[in-house]
Amino acid sequence: MPDEQQLITRLPQSEIEVQVRYIECDPMSVAHHSVYPVWLELARTQWLRDRGMPYSELEQQGVLFVVARMSIRYRKPARYDDVLLVRVWLAKGGKPSRVKVDQEYEIRRGDELLATAETTLVCVDRQGKPQAIPAQIV
Amino acid sequence: MPDEQQLITRLPQSEIEVQVRYIECDPMSVAHHSVYPVWLELARTQWLRDRGMPYSELEQQGVLFVVARMSIRYRKPARYDDVLLVRVWLAKGGKPSRVKVDQEYEIRRGDELLATAETTLVCVDRQGKPQAIPAQIV
Amino acid sequence: MPDEQQLITRLPQSEIEVQVRYIECDPMSVAHHSVYPVWLELARTQWLRDRGMPYSELEQQGVLFVVARMSIRYRKPARYDDVLLVRVWLAKGGKPSRVKVDQEYEIRRGDELLATAETTLVCVDRQGKPQAIPAQIV
Amino acid sequence: MPDEQQLITRLPQSEIEVQVRYIECDPMSVAHHSVYPVWLELARTQWLRDRGMPYSELEQQGVLFVVARMSIRYRKPARYDDVLLVRVWLAKGGKPSRVKVDQEYEIRRGDELLATAETTLVCVDRQGKPQAIPAQIV
Repeated sequence: MPDEQQLITRLPQSEIEVQVRYIECDPMSVAHHSVYPVWLELARTQWLRDRGMPYSELEQQGVLFVVARMSIRYRKPARYDDVLLVRVWLAKGGKPSRVKVDQEYEIRRGDELLATAETTLVCVDRQGKPQAIPAQIV
Repeated sequence: MPDEQQLITRLPQSEIEVQVRYIECDPMSVAHHSVYPVWLELARTQWLRDRGMPYSELEQQGVLFVVARMSIRYRKPARYDDVLLVRVWLAKGGKPSRVKVDQEYEIRRGDELLATAETTLVCVDRQGKPQAIPAQIV
Repeated sequence: MPDEQQLITRLPQSEIEVQVRYIECDPMSVAHHSVYPVWLELARTQWLRDRGMPYSELEQQGVLFVVARMSIRYRKPARYDDVLLVRVWLAKGGKPSRVKVDQEYEIRRGDELLATAETTLVCVDRQGKPQAIPAQIV
Repeated sequence: MPDEQQLITRLPQSEIEVQVRYIECDPMSVAHHSVYPVWLELARTQWLRDRGMPYSELEQQGVLFVVARMSIRYRKPARYDDVLLVRVWLAKGGKPSRVKVDQEYEIRRGDELLATAETTLVCVDRQGKPQAIPAQIV
């Protein structure tokens, strides 16, 4: 099995494309700020998939992740039908931990940076108790 | 235990008040049509509570309800901050059934009728198999 | 300009693929029934795009569509990460109308039919007054 | 007109009660983390209302607020049907600004602190250009 450093080198980041849905927009005709966490989650999901660990399988094995911290900086609005690129990677400055993972994100529309974000996830079991993150993931 | 007819007579309908949230509104500045099912569910929840059977307790007992059919007629738009009244009752014409319940709804803003709706729910167990509706409910 | 029948013949239906998002699932671990209207809207959006009329452009021209009626029949649950196909077409039996359009839908997961639906949309201007549907659309 | 300090003294915080909706819960049977921003917004809305400036009126006057930054620390999960208290107040350490307002939040279930949060809002006009916050508000 490849070690952590190799995986990070080989898969420095994951990215997904999302198209802004009509229902995601508010009366200001821009994507509501509460939708960004959903897009971040979709990017994280892809990041797990890229490591060969779809979240649906992890969940069946009793390996769950909960969001302990989320911080988003909104720079420019996203509009209906915009195609956005959401990128996620492991935070470099994140302290290594058996049960936590720090990630950073950016949301772009072409060359424009619309938002940046950071999350801390905690790996838990079905009862919500912290447990070690499977070795393949980080 | 009171029989069904008594309960219907005593509790002909349940109602809740909802205030339209900003996030529930779309770029046309009206509540998006996909929010109405959420309001109907809140009214149904109250209807169960009024019968002494909160859904959270039913769920713990393995008594779940799934929506098998939903039909909504949108008459007038609801706007941000509007206070709405959502009413639900057992459909009179609904065929009696051990596992299904037909309900009707109306959504009002004061005197104005904004929408009407109908749903059919099926009572299922944790594996999704139909089971008899507890006697207290209908 | 091609007439309506030609367009229907040439473009009998539109379809999109959606992957069930984690946030779209409820404690029963299935897609919540209020998400289906969102998927139907995404399919309608593609249907307009296939006719060369993206909704974002229609909106700028003051051509809006509101949902007047929606009916959904839920047959089998959709689960997290499922890839679904959502198809939409003009209802054959729909009465022709200058301002309304009736559509039918099906939601599939491979060979399985998960849901069917019908909607009636009304074409309105920015003040919500009914107006004629642009000839290219229906 | 009362000056800012008087208002802060008189109205140190606003609070709302929310009951966790079924649709707000995910397959882990807890409120999904993307719902918390919605609850924070409801509390901010009440904060404006408590100052005699409902957001619906501000919007009609062309006074809009956009979220520039949001940070949430999730401590304990919220569950279906839980009644939560969401409190908001002006951040003490926030640098005074003509166009920005920093706020802090806590979300409680009885004595338990479930989450804390911070936001920075920017006051903008209908074109999204920053403008001075009306004097009554901060």
